[in-house]
Amino acid sequence: MNDFLELSSDAQDLLFRQARTANSFTDEPVTDEQVAAIQDLVRFGPTAMNSQPLRIVLVRSDDARARLLKHMADGNRDKTAAAPLVAILAADTDFNEHLPTVFPHAEGAKGWFPDPVAREATARLNAGLQIGYFIMGVRAAGLAAGPMTGFDAEGIDEDLLAGTGYKTMVVVNIGHPGENAWFDRLPRLEHEQVVTAL
Amino acid sequence: MNDFLELSSDAQDLLFRQARTANSFTDEPVTDEQVAAIQDLVRFGPTAMNSQPLRIVLVRSDDARARLLKHMADGNRDKTAAAPLVAILAADTDFNEHLPTVFPHAEGAKGWFPDPVAREATARLNAGLQIGYFIMGVRAAGLAAGPMTGFDAEGIDEDLLAGTGYKTMVVVNIGHPGENAWFDRLPRLEHEQVVTAL
Repeated sequence: MNDFLELSSDAQDLLFRQARTANSFTDEPVTDEQVAAIQDLVRFGPTAMNSQPLRIVLVRSDDARARLLKHMADGNRDKTAAAPLVAILAADTDFNEHLPTVFPHAEGAKGWFPDPVAREATARLNAGLQIGYFIMGVRAAGLAAGPMTGFDAEGIDEDLLAGTGYKTMVVVNIGHPGENAWFDRLPRLEHEQVVTAL
Repeated sequence: MNDFLELSSDAQDLLFRQARTANSFTDEPVTDEQVAAIQDLVRFGPTAMNSQPLRIVLVRSDDARARLLKHMADGNRDKTAAAPLVAILAADTDFNEHLPTVFPHAEGAKGWFPDPVAREATARLNAGLQIGYFIMGVRAAGLAAGPMTGFDAEGIDEDLLAGTGYKTMVVVNIGHPGENAWFDRLPRLEHEQVVTAL
């Protein structure tokens, strides 16, 4: 299979084949410089109309961490409490405000999303792609990601993201993997279950 | 910034820094073996409950291509007609049927999604992440991707995906970049507009 890939085998391993979702972490901190390096790389990933709706909210203070934990599902609370860095990955439903800057040739594009339901769907779709890029970026930095969707999203939005148009999609623990960080690799679907042709 | 990244500079360029959304392609075909190599890599990307809801429908026949073109936005029709390979990237809203195989330790997980609205939201969120991984996989194969969201999604679902629980999210052109394949790189948001801390 590798004969068809230009990406080096080391990079394949780092991003996909050996990378794993971590469930425990060492105490080693994740710095703002590391986050900046990740974002500096993944910001180039493509989005529709260059809309870039993903927002990354680092939960740095003890107060914010305590508030976040209340909204996490029971099975995710302890590892979210212990992770060196936790980030809320959210879709900015006001992404269109930036279109005059990031999509400058389309005059009036900012006004193309009058329906808040359609605007939120666009924000979530493109932020979803960017979460995929971001997880690859965390791995590119030699760190492990523990993405989670088990939480009360409305609770996080109303508590930690009040006053923004952000909608929480994924909460991700980030750090160096600790003891017993990995569960066994779970089975993937067969090729024929995923890829079909018309 | 690169000092903080473990991923090689070449791989950074291939996946993010030099990779670009292609708007034209050469005639060189994209083979099923290339698609299999891409999928064999990106299938390891993480999803909630290992749910893997992304489905990749290759539009190989002339009939399917002609039907797809009718549902594309005017600005996307010509390049979709000319691309060597077009794939419909869709979320399988019946992803939970596979949970007994892919998430075997959670007994009864297949039945945890009785609400079709919540099930579709879960499918779309996780398929979104997987579309991000897939675009990286296309680039890992040395190919260019041209992801698009300008189309009548319901039209595609009812016409080409009838009888499945698939919901079209992105249509992507894939191939080797042709003449004048690239627009100028559009500006990215500033770091402070994307990353904040609480």
